[in-house]
Amino acid sequence: MKRVAIFGLGLIGGSLALALRDKGLAERIVGVEASEENALKALELGLVDEVVEMEEAIEGAGGEPRADLIVLATPVDVTPVLAVKVLNKVTAGQTVMDMGSIKEELCEVIEQHPARGRFVATHPMWGTENSGPEAAVHGAFAGRTAVICDREKSDADALATVEAMYEALGAKLVYMTAAEQDLHTAYVSHISHITSFALALTVLEKEREEEHIFDLAGGGFESTVRLAKSSPATWLPIFTGNKYNVLDVLREHIHQLQIIRRLLERDDHEGLAAAMKKANTIKRILP
Amino acid sequence: MKRVAIFGLGLIGGSLALALRDKGLAERIVGVEASEENALKALELGLVDEVVEMEEAIEGAGGEPRADLIVLATPVDVTPVLAVKVLNKVTAGQTVMDMGSIKEELCEVIEQHPARGRFVATHPMWGTENSGPEAAVHGAFAGRTAVICDREKSDADALATVEAMYEALGAKLVYMTAAEQDLHTAYVSHISHITSFALALTVLEKEREEEHIFDLAGGGFESTVRLAKSSPATWLPIFTGNKYNVLDVLREHIHQLQIIRRLLERDDHEGLAAAMKKANTIKRILP
Repeated sequence: MKRVAIFGLGLIGGSLALALRDKGLAERIVGVEASEENALKALELGLVDEVVEMEEAIEGAGGEPRADLIVLATPVDVTPVLAVKVLNKVTAGQTVMDMGSIKEELCEVIEQHPARGRFVATHPMWGTENSGPEAAVHGAFAGRTAVICDREKSDADALATVEAMYEALGAKLVYMTAAEQDLHTAYVSHISHITSFALALTVLEKEREEEHIFDLAGGGFESTVRLAKSSPATWLPIFTGNKYNVLDVLREHIHQLQIIRRLLERDDHEGLAAAMKKANTIKRILP
Repeated sequence: MKRVAIFGLGLIGGSLALALRDKGLAERIVGVEASEENALKALELGLVDEVVEMEEAIEGAGGEPRADLIVLATPVDVTPVLAVKVLNKVTAGQTVMDMGSIKEELCEVIEQHPARGRFVATHPMWGTENSGPEAAVHGAFAGRTAVICDREKSDADALATVEAMYEALGAKLVYMTAAEQDLHTAYVSHISHITSFALALTVLEKEREEEHIFDLAGGGFESTVRLAKSSPATWLPIFTGNKYNVLDVLREHIHQLQIIRRLLERDDHEGLAAAMKKANTIKRILP
């Protein structure tokens, strides 16, 4: 993999650029970035060698060869149409991958594209609450799971290119369908973000009247509310794009909170203790 | 402060013992611990020099002098009665403090005690999801806020002893009434724990049917669900002891989640974005 083009130089695209450089996996990295401000920042931070237009990123220019790997690290509402436009231009030796949090719509949109085999749909389970090129950090993806969706729809060499890249970054690969990934991700990622947003709103609602909240933000608050700092530009398209799964989980979460509320209202200490002990078994999943 | 007696050698009491030693703030630390298993572990880990009975911890034995500082780091349902028993035995030179998460009941119970002035009610805003002596860590409380409640009810020298200790540990002091502290702590600590418990239950509910949750636990899940590993023995008495504040916050939190649910159901993207932007302003509080 010599030449990499990254579309979207924010938290994910920027961190991938750093990781590829740190591991010596790319000789040259060009970026495509809709925001001029972010493009300048990305260059300033040395995330990419150059910011170019889409065509040049894919096809090269001035005798430069084509990109070996094209990465879409764009907001999930932008990715499906962008994926089609990119696939319209790629040739046999090129691999395209995305890194978005949802997959069903994307995979549906590219389903019948003649170059579908060149595309590998991926979701690395990594992120922070920060966004933009300044949010890019070294060491991202290492030790995390990277999901590859509908692998049988990717050409063997394209799949191998992406698998080798994630493995070189220290990620563990997991395979599932686009539909499965969207369901599971609603449980392990999207609901955590919604909970954090709601928790922040709960505290802000009260903070109008009260002042001491500032000083007291220890005691578990930071970790649960951290995700509420996340960018609406990233997360609104995720929630709306995964609407039915997110609503399903959100309804169950509200239901569980209502059960706890009722146990507390009724002074059912035994019931509360049993619920907490059951919740403790999450240690099985997260040791 | 030469001699310290710590009642309760779990996460908080154990971490305080380590911090006092690390900072050279105690010449001798004795512990009082109801669980024999925990007492043995605490000795094995070197958290305390000796585990003794309550009387000996307060009054000394065999010509040993009395404890200068007596710390109650017990579950909050045990603390009020224990505080009275301890105050029954202390003399003028001794200071007693607690480190629990709620204060109203405690302060009400000791209100009329003739030795009330020897007591300083405190709540350091620090903790982890782990419990027991093995959970004790170095460096706890540094950089965190420690709340001191109803300071005017403590004798000046007792208050100064406790303030000096927290400052030496690197904590920042904040003062409020017991009632204020219980209200604010419901917002910044108790609700985060309830949310985590409910989130764990939500995922466990679904995990019966689904397997992939294990692999995917990145993406924000650990940080929001971490607190669900917390001990019911610690947290049940906190939730029930602070029932009305916790219910108040819990109702508001459920209300906020229901607002988000309805916005998503109605495809009100503008409304969702506005809610997320408002939640983002939590950065003011947690930069």
